[in-house]
Amino acid sequence: MPYQKLTHFDESGRAKMVDVTDKSVTDRKAVANGSVHMKPETLQLIQQGKVKKGDVLSVAQVAGIMGAKRTPDLIPMCHPLMLTGVNMDFNIEEKPDERGLAVISITASVKTKGQTGVEMEALTAVSVAALTIYDMCKAADKDMILGEIFLSSKSGGKSGTYERGGD
Amino acid sequence: MPYQKLTHFDESGRAKMVDVTDKSVTDRKAVANGSVHMKPETLQLIQQGKVKKGDVLSVAQVAGIMGAKRTPDLIPMCHPLMLTGVNMDFNIEEKPDERGLAVISITASVKTKGQTGVEMEALTAVSVAALTIYDMCKAADKDMILGEIFLSSKSGGKSGTYERGGD
Amino acid sequence: MPYQKLTHFDESGRAKMVDVTDKSVTDRKAVANGSVHMKPETLQLIQQGKVKKGDVLSVAQVAGIMGAKRTPDLIPMCHPLMLTGVNMDFNIEEKPDERGLAVISITASVKTKGQTGVEMEALTAVSVAALTIYDMCKAADKDMILGEIFLSSKSGGKSGTYERGGD
Amino acid sequence: MPYQKLTHFDESGRAKMVDVTDKSVTDRKAVANGSVHMKPETLQLIQQGKVKKGDVLSVAQVAGIMGAKRTPDLIPMCHPLMLTGVNMDFNIEEKPDERGLAVISITASVKTKGQTGVEMEALTAVSVAALTIYDMCKAADKDMILGEIFLSSKSGGKSGTYERGGD
Amino acid sequence: MPYQKLTHFDESGRAKMVDVTDKSVTDRKAVANGSVHMKPETLQLIQQGKVKKGDVLSVAQVAGIMGAKRTPDLIPMCHPLMLTGVNMDFNIEEKPDERGLAVISITASVKTKGQTGVEMEALTAVSVAALTIYDMCKAADKDMILGEIFLSSKSGGKSGTYERGGD
Amino acid sequence: MPYQKLTHFDESGRAKMVDVTDKSVTDRKAVANGSVHMKPETLQLIQQGKVKKGDVLSVAQVAGIMGAKRTPDLIPMCHPLMLTGVNMDFNIEEKPDERGLAVISITASVKTKGQTGVEMEALTAVSVAALTIYDMCKAADKDMILGEIFLSSKSGGKSGTYERGGD
Repeated sequence: MPYQKLTHFDESGRAKMVDVTDKSVTDRKAVANGSVHMKPETLQLIQQGKVKKGDVLSVAQVAGIMGAKRTPDLIPMCHPLMLTGVNMDFNIEEKPDERGLAVISITASVKTKGQTGVEMEALTAVSVAALTIYDMCKAADKDMILGEIFLSSKSGGKSGTYERGGD
Repeated sequence: MPYQKLTHFDESGRAKMVDVTDKSVTDRKAVANGSVHMKPETLQLIQQGKVKKGDVLSVAQVAGIMGAKRTPDLIPMCHPLMLTGVNMDFNIEEKPDERGLAVISITASVKTKGQTGVEMEALTAVSVAALTIYDMCKAADKDMILGEIFLSSKSGGKSGTYERGGD
Repeated sequence: MPYQKLTHFDESGRAKMVDVTDKSVTDRKAVANGSVHMKPETLQLIQQGKVKKGDVLSVAQVAGIMGAKRTPDLIPMCHPLMLTGVNMDFNIEEKPDERGLAVISITASVKTKGQTGVEMEALTAVSVAALTIYDMCKAADKDMILGEIFLSSKSGGKSGTYERGGD
Repeated sequence: MPYQKLTHFDESGRAKMVDVTDKSVTDRKAVANGSVHMKPETLQLIQQGKVKKGDVLSVAQVAGIMGAKRTPDLIPMCHPLMLTGVNMDFNIEEKPDERGLAVISITASVKTKGQTGVEMEALTAVSVAALTIYDMCKAADKDMILGEIFLSSKSGGKSGTYERGGD
Repeated sequence: MPYQKLTHFDESGRAKMVDVTDKSVTDRKAVANGSVHMKPETLQLIQQGKVKKGDVLSVAQVAGIMGAKRTPDLIPMCHPLMLTGVNMDFNIEEKPDERGLAVISITASVKTKGQTGVEMEALTAVSVAALTIYDMCKAADKDMILGEIFLSSKSGGKSGTYERGGD
Repeated sequence: MPYQKLTHFDESGRAKMVDVTDKSVTDRKAVANGSVHMKPETLQLIQQGKVKKGDVLSVAQVAGIMGAKRTPDLIPMCHPLMLTGVNMDFNIEEKPDERGLAVISITASVKTKGQTGVEMEALTAVSVAALTIYDMCKAADKDMILGEIFLSSKSGGKSGTYERGGD
């Protein structure tokens, strides 16, 4: 399979924002996933908080959505885009990971009608949400880990549909 | 070990930015780590680019440092801080991971002289640098994975020195 | 009259940025109003300043226009939009309010060609302009009040034209 | 009572950011208040949402705190400040206002250790929180009104303590 | 030659963001130029850095591209635009200027598909890149000068093609 | 005169934000200058505008001051700083330049009490003000030139006082 060249560099080798002027405007969607791993006691604090004293995940949700909007400010070669929808989902996994850590999984789904895809927006939303969970719980557990973050699927645009693990 | 309460919530259970007015100003440092995992062919593109046509890692480095400065804009309950130093390091691992993927590891070291720590700034710098590597190579490899991101150490402040894996 | 459901929440009850991908692109306009109430002496300072030493309202005007552009950074669930026009108007009311305070009224009119309305941009422009007037005069009068801020009218989009006080 | 001159203008009459280099660093606090007025049915939607399907006020709370941090980006002559604490409180008033509208009152309390006060940060936090409530409910009620916003108290700094309605 | 009126002011004389709602969406491009002038020894440091110790121009390139995206945040009456491409080029002039200073010339080329032009984005990209070169070398040479910055050409839109020095 | 090394690069040659943690906090000030050159007819429009229909320079002044505050967002390796004062001055030169163009000169003076200098903030303020003048007049004159921008003086900090043209 021949690789496409890295489109972010111009002929003299310096970085550029790739020209998408001639790409067509299509409906685009991307979904990304990630997780936060923590001591079971930390998860309990979050879960109790949901009922009794606050909701870590609702702050993380707001942060993730706002983070998606900040993507072109953060990722140097990203095109500005008018996002038409951002949805985030948090799930507390029933089983701990192989290290015995409790796991909150995060999914971000981002849509636009534009000339480039929203993969980076979805990945950024997951990252900022995970960072926010860390921030809100770090007084109790500095050992928390932001688990692997990856693109699950994308659709729209010339490169077509991508499904992780597809072929 | 008794957990500290989650300090980010006020008595009625809503989120707040914790009051640190009375904390003393001390030198603070935090180091965070992460990684990006990719097909070996993708790494080759990056490495060739370093010589021939551009430097993915130098863009990621700038993005990480600028990302550290945006932390209070991204993480809702983070205090604004005057960072006094940010240093990022990228290392191409000699051995692939257990999936056969090539690994670029990322370290961010952040310092301030202030009333709260810079853990979030270091974690954000690593996250933004990793996202930037993904962005710059995604035309060639959408399967890339942002590996686990975690705090390695922190020093300064009342809670003292933290070393990951220490006790 | 049956209420529409609150569209900002997903089925599991968490906030989301509502999906507008399928909405049509139409010309949209929104007008919002507000005011700042102050001691008559404070108004005199502003008015004299206009001639002799500066122009509080011209700074407020710039701030309001720039504030309109920052709306999606400030209001978590707001869609980013490419504003096509922002116009602000300040009016010094001839009569004091019922408390004897002098009144500067503020109108912001915002336009776009897009998939969602610009109500929030108009309301934000008025708010930021009013806050700026407060800031610039607070050395003289900390008792100033930002008066009621509301949407006067909107047009464009599926929900059609809204006129305050209409039926 | 002789007025202080408007300190935001230089001698030639143009706006400037007032020089506070020689002011002493003191603990400073400001409290601001505001409200959102809405149809009783809209309030019911919010209250039901709190239990069943989401929490308008928790999004507004996050927005207000983040808004406080954006104050120097929004208000032209405001000094950048390292906020050391932000706390927001929402209260559903038992009685409707004189128009029969239900009222959510908003209080923001902001602290810093610095050379200038945090009045604008407290007022901005209230404004952004009120705008967010409007945004999240506007599909149901465009007639909502952002009620009067004002400074309740401040302390710290050379100008000393201010209490609204005090003398 | 009759001048167009200054479109940034409304009838009462205050600044506004010009209404472009009815302008047609066309492909637009603008190219701007600038330079940085410095002691020949400073240029040598930059050139050696390219090989041995870092690359001032690659940081400036990233900064310029990111700066182009921040234009509507910086320039009060600029419309937000979805840039579709940004390309920057740096050239080390063979001959010193008339003062014997070495010269790095900077070109920024910006594209969009939109209702207004991208002159300001190109000029801002050049300015931010030039400022970044100054910042990175100022420890060695505070006498550096940002040379003249100007628009070289623009195309697209009702006002048609502009070429500097053309007639 | 031996040059200091370029402090913005770490030992492996990548860019970093220089560590200033151990620098002492001192009063710092920097003054920068620049200019905008334009057809005499364009200057007339600005001057008439000042009386009749608006004030280009008052918008540029606000933009410059706000731009100074955005410096660490724009210039990658700049430390965030709490500016304690920003003052801008515009002067219409009596004589045209050697090309017969009218000249508006711009001076920005920035102060802080901190661990690093404010040279970049002063230079950025001048640049953003000049860009704003261009933006507001470009409908009438696209040939305008942003003239040379440079540091005039700085004081405070270990490197002491700098005066342009001094020795």
